[in-house]
Amino acid sequence: MTINVLLYPNFTVLDAFGPVEVLGSLPGREMRYLSPDGGIVRSGQGVPVETEVMETMAPGGVLLIPGGMGSRPLAKDEAFLARLKALAEQADYVLCVCTGSALLARTGLLDGRRATSNKTAFDWVRSCGPDVLWQRQARWVADGKYYTSAGVSAGTDMALGFVRDLFGAEEAETICRRMEYHWNRDADNDIF
Amino acid sequence: MTINVLLYPNFTVLDAFGPVEVLGSLPGREMRYLSPDGGIVRSGQGVPVETEVMETMAPGGVLLIPGGMGSRPLAKDEAFLARLKALAEQADYVLCVCTGSALLARTGLLDGRRATSNKTAFDWVRSCGPDVLWQRQARWVADGKYYTSAGVSAGTDMALGFVRDLFGAEEAETICRRMEYHWNRDADNDIF
Repeated sequence: MTINVLLYPNFTVLDAFGPVEVLGSLPGREMRYLSPDGGIVRSGQGVPVETEVMETMAPGGVLLIPGGMGSRPLAKDEAFLARLKALAEQADYVLCVCTGSALLARTGLLDGRRATSNKTAFDWVRSCGPDVLWQRQARWVADGKYYTSAGVSAGTDMALGFVRDLFGAEEAETICRRMEYHWNRDADNDIF
Repeated sequence: MTINVLLYPNFTVLDAFGPVEVLGSLPGREMRYLSPDGGIVRSGQGVPVETEVMETMAPGGVLLIPGGMGSRPLAKDEAFLARLKALAEQADYVLCVCTGSALLARTGLLDGRRATSNKTAFDWVRSCGPDVLWQRQARWVADGKYYTSAGVSAGTDMALGFVRDLFGAEEAETICRRMEYHWNRDADNDIF
């Protein structure tokens, strides 16, 4: 299984690399780091990550979309959104963290589906997908091939939940133990 | 305050970027990403991060040392350990996550001090610093300017604890809320 991580300027570092820690632990996985233009992309915390152009993604696998302040300009960029829609349609699964779900919502692919996002930007995210069935109170939501999580660290909980759904609880618990992670195992338990 | 993140081939991605999410939220902070040789460094999960040579670090600030499989060869590399010792002495604070504490222990700077590390590598880490007062049951330990944490995700708890120690509980709780993070606030509470 290939894990395709879509980065962009001003992504939130833990949105991407919490799930990467989890999914990167899967046996036999391949990791790819992509972005709209390729080259070095800096997170909101200035982490410079080398990426390849997003269209080099092969069909299938997982597409991971982090949130971050950089999602605001991209949510208005129709050319980018068309490219994102094409990739999301080709992926077997799409995992969005935080305001990453706003970007996916703007493609229309979440219309009529249940989804969530982080709390502080919730109204803006909702405006990005008026026909999405937004769940305000959720740590993460799975609907078909689309997984969406609440803010930042909720993405790590969701990634473990995704591993549990696909590969079973034992695999998820093994990864959780190795990470010495306090996993919020219940997708509906949202204290924020 | 400058946050200097020391990366090396096969570092563990969440060890570094959980604390970076926390410390990168501090007002006025500067973030630097360093490595022994500079250039692109790949984490164990294949994340390619652009770095500068470690000696470009300015005195003062925070030095963050993640763990990972790549710590094993470095713990035997006397030339690297001498360079690491020089940087750690210059830093105002040194934060080690997981097996990052093995590297710091090998410099001798933890001798006679309390420290911890992750569970699965604990015996190896202990062998890297026979004169360190290792605490097996701890989420994180602070002793003077040296902070050390248990495995992987414990580094994020420690980073929030470090912010609380230096800047107060309100600052730490603000960052925690923005991250929607289930913070294990008690350094002594270790369920692993």
